[in-house]
Amino acid sequence: MKTLFKNADILLRENGGYRVAESCFLAVEDDRISYIGEARPEGDFDCVKDMSSRLLMPGLYNCHNHSPMVLLRGVGSDLPLDKWLTEEIFPVEDRLTAEDIRAGSYLALLEMIACGTASFSDMYFEPHTTVGAVIEAGLRANIQRPVLSLDPNEKPEDSYRIREAMELYENYNGAADGRILIDFCIHAEYTCTETIARAYSELCRERHGLMHVHLSETYKEHDECIAKYGKTPAKWFEDLGAFDSRAFAAHCVAVSDEDIDIFLRHGVSVVHNPSSNLKLGSGFAPVAKLIDRGVNVALGTDGAASNNNLNIFEEMHLASIIHNGYMKDATVMGADTVIDMATVNGARLQGRENCGELAVGNKADIIAVSLEGPHMRPALDKKSLVTYSAQGSDVCMNMVDGRILYENGEYKTLDKERIYYDLNRAVERLYGGD
Amino acid sequence: MKTLFKNADILLRENGGYRVAESCFLAVEDDRISYIGEARPEGDFDCVKDMSSRLLMPGLYNCHNHSPMVLLRGVGSDLPLDKWLTEEIFPVEDRLTAEDIRAGSYLALLEMIACGTASFSDMYFEPHTTVGAVIEAGLRANIQRPVLSLDPNEKPEDSYRIREAMELYENYNGAADGRILIDFCIHAEYTCTETIARAYSELCRERHGLMHVHLSETYKEHDECIAKYGKTPAKWFEDLGAFDSRAFAAHCVAVSDEDIDIFLRHGVSVVHNPSSNLKLGSGFAPVAKLIDRGVNVALGTDGAASNNNLNIFEEMHLASIIHNGYMKDATVMGADTVIDMATVNGARLQGRENCGELAVGNKADIIAVSLEGPHMRPALDKKSLVTYSAQGSDVCMNMVDGRILYENGEYKTLDKERIYYDLNRAVERLYGGD
Repeated sequence: MKTLFKNADILLRENGGYRVAESCFLAVEDDRISYIGEARPEGDFDCVKDMSSRLLMPGLYNCHNHSPMVLLRGVGSDLPLDKWLTEEIFPVEDRLTAEDIRAGSYLALLEMIACGTASFSDMYFEPHTTVGAVIEAGLRANIQRPVLSLDPNEKPEDSYRIREAMELYENYNGAADGRILIDFCIHAEYTCTETIARAYSELCRERHGLMHVHLSETYKEHDECIAKYGKTPAKWFEDLGAFDSRAFAAHCVAVSDEDIDIFLRHGVSVVHNPSSNLKLGSGFAPVAKLIDRGVNVALGTDGAASNNNLNIFEEMHLASIIHNGYMKDATVMGADTVIDMATVNGARLQGRENCGELAVGNKADIIAVSLEGPHMRPALDKKSLVTYSAQGSDVCMNMVDGRILYENGEYKTLDKERIYYDLNRAVERLYGGD
Repeated sequence: MKTLFKNADILLRENGGYRVAESCFLAVEDDRISYIGEARPEGDFDCVKDMSSRLLMPGLYNCHNHSPMVLLRGVGSDLPLDKWLTEEIFPVEDRLTAEDIRAGSYLALLEMIACGTASFSDMYFEPHTTVGAVIEAGLRANIQRPVLSLDPNEKPEDSYRIREAMELYENYNGAADGRILIDFCIHAEYTCTETIARAYSELCRERHGLMHVHLSETYKEHDECIAKYGKTPAKWFEDLGAFDSRAFAAHCVAVSDEDIDIFLRHGVSVVHNPSSNLKLGSGFAPVAKLIDRGVNVALGTDGAASNNNLNIFEEMHLASIIHNGYMKDATVMGADTVIDMATVNGARLQGRENCGELAVGNKADIIAVSLEGPHMRPALDKKSLVTYSAQGSDVCMNMVDGRILYENGEYKTLDKERIYYDLNRAVERLYGGD
C-alpha cells in the first residue's frame, strides 16, 4: 500500500527543535514513511490525499493511562481525594467485570483516536480485554497488569496478580507486529509489599522488561513512605531492583533532587500528568528541573476519572503554561519542549524505535491537524499553533503503522455505534441506567 | 418569532448550584425565554428544534479581552515577557490601522461565536470597528477605548484618548437594543498619570459608568506601584475615584487582603484570566479567597497573543483545576463555582440584567453543547461533563438575544470566507504575507 500526502505542512524535528516545512509531499509505503520533500516523488500511489490547510505531525503518546476508567468519568467530582477514592471510585471498581472493562477500553480508544493518539501506556485490570481492543483498533499500546499486594504474608508464588501479569507478558508481548508491548508494573510503594515488589522486579530484570510505577504522586504518599521506610518511594523502588531493567514513573510531583539522581542513574523516564495532578490537588511536578537535568519526560492523561478526558492536546496545553505560572517565568517551557514530551519522548519511554518523529524510514504514525478554524488563524507560527491553540477536535486524520484509523470524524477500524451500545449496557449494569 | 427546543437537557441554576433537567422543552419568544418544562407548551412555533443528546446552557461571558489581538496570535511565543512586549507585540501594534483592527475583530467573533460566547468585554484601539462587527454578528459586548497617558504634562482636555472614549460612549452606549454597552477604561496604573486618571474617573462617575482596568497582573507591577506611590494599584485606583461608580479589574494576581477590602467596599468585580496569567508567568490569582470573601469573579481570555485562544471552555477547565493544584486541595474549586464564573457572574459584572442564566423571562442567550462525542460519555454527571470534559468544539448552537448565530458549524450572521479573505489582506499588510 502506497499513500501520498500532497500540499502538506509538515512538522519536522531538526537540531533538537521543530520546523514546519510548507506545502510538501510525504509518502507512506506500508508501515513506513518513504519520502518527505518539496518535489513530487516518483512512482504510482494507491491513494493520493490533499492535505491543504492541514499540518502533518507525529501521532501523540499518552504514557500514563487507566483507559477503562472512562467508565467512571465524572464519578464523585469535587470531593476530597480520600473520600472520592474510597467512597466513590473503589466501590464501582469492585463491581467491574471483564465485559465492563472491555466496553470501557473501546470507548477510551474512540476518544484517543479522535484526539490524535498513536500509542498509550495502560495500567488496569483484565488487561487482555484492552489488548484485544487495541489490536482491533490499530493503535500501539504498552499494556500492564498492575501488581500489588496489601497482605504482608503473601508469597510471590501465590500472587495471582504476578501470575496474570506474566501470562499477559508471555501471550501478548510483541503482538500485532510489535504494536502491542507488555510491560511490568508495580502499582505503587503504598500498595505493595517489599517481598512481592522484589520478586516481581527480578522477573522484569530477567526479561529486560519495562517497569511502570506510580511514584510520589502526592506529598502525603512521599512523606508517609519516608516515615515508614526511612527513604523516598524512588529509593524504595531502586533498592528493590524495580529500576534494574528499564522503567518509567508516573506523576513524580513530590520528588527530591536525590530522587532525580536515581532516575538518571537508571535511565528512568517520568510521565507528567498535569490535568490529574491539578484536579486532585496533588501539585506541580518539577518538570523544568527534570528536563534540565536530563530526565526523559513524557505526557499522560491518567485515567478519565481524574482528568476528565484522554486528550493529549489538553495535556500539552497545560504543560506549556502551568510551569511558567508556577515559577513566574514566561520562558520555563516552550513549544519545542512540549512537542517533544508529547511525541518522541513518549516513543523513547515506551521503547519504540523509529517512532515519534516524522522522518524517512520511521513508522508512519501521522496525524493531520486542521488549520481551518478561526482559532488557528493567522498561521504566523504553526509550531506555536500546535502547542497553544490546537484542540483535540482539530485532528482530522490519524494514521498508525501506515493505516488510517480515523478521518474527518469517521472511524475506519472501530464501530462507534456498537461501542456506544455496549457502553450503555455496561453503565446500566454498573449504575442502574445511564 | 417563536422557537421551541424539544428533548433538551437543560442546565438550571437552583439554590446557588446547578441541576440538569433532562428531556425538557424550552421555548423562546422573540428575545426572551418564555417556557421551560417537561410538558410541551401550548401554541404554535415558527421553528421546532430537536435537542436530543444536547445540553442547553447559558451562553458564556468573556469579561477581559483585546479581541483584535488575534492578529498577533503566536507572535513572539516563548520569549521573556518584556522582550515579547517591546520587541514583538508593540511594533506590530504600532502598525495597526482601523482596517486591520476591523479584520481582527471579525476573526475574533468567528472564534468566540463557535466556542459559545454570548458576551465579551473588549479593550482595544479603534473600538468603533469592533462595535460595528459585534452589531453585525449579533453578540453582546461591553466595549472600551482604553485611556492612558505617559506624558506627565498632558491635560485631560488635551487627551485625544479621553475624547475618543467619550465619543464612543455618546455614540454607541446602549446600541443594538442594549447589546452594545460602552464602558470606561483606564488601561493600568503604570500606563496612566494621576491627572488623567482622576479626570476620566470623574466623567465615569457622572455617567454612572462601568470602569475596566488592568490591576496587579504581575508582582512586578504591584511592587513598583508601591515603590512609586506608597500604595497598591487597587488603592491608587480607589484614591483617584476610579471605583466611585461601577468597576471591574482584570487579573488581580498580586492583590493583598486590603485590596480585596477595597473591591468589597466598592463592589468591584474581578476577571480571572488563567491561560494568560500562566503563559506569561504572572502567577495565580487568589480566586478561591476572592470568592470566599464575596467578590464577584468572572472569566476572561485576555488577548489571543497571550492565550492563544478566545475559548471560555478552556478558561473554565483551567479555573476548575489549577487552584486545586496550587493550594493542594481537590475541593478548592468545583463545577458550580466555575459555571457561575463563566455565566451569571459575567452578566453581573457587565451590568446585564436578566442574562447569564436559563430562566423564564430572561434573555434567550443559549448554547447547545453536544453530548455525542466519546469524551462526553458516559453522561453520569452532566454538570461535571460541562466543566471538566467539554471542548469549545462541542458547541453546536449559539443563540444570542433569541437569534441563532451559529449552528452545526455554520455561521448565520457572518460571512466566514469574506472574513478570512480580509484577514489574509491584513496579515499581508502587517507581516508581508501569511
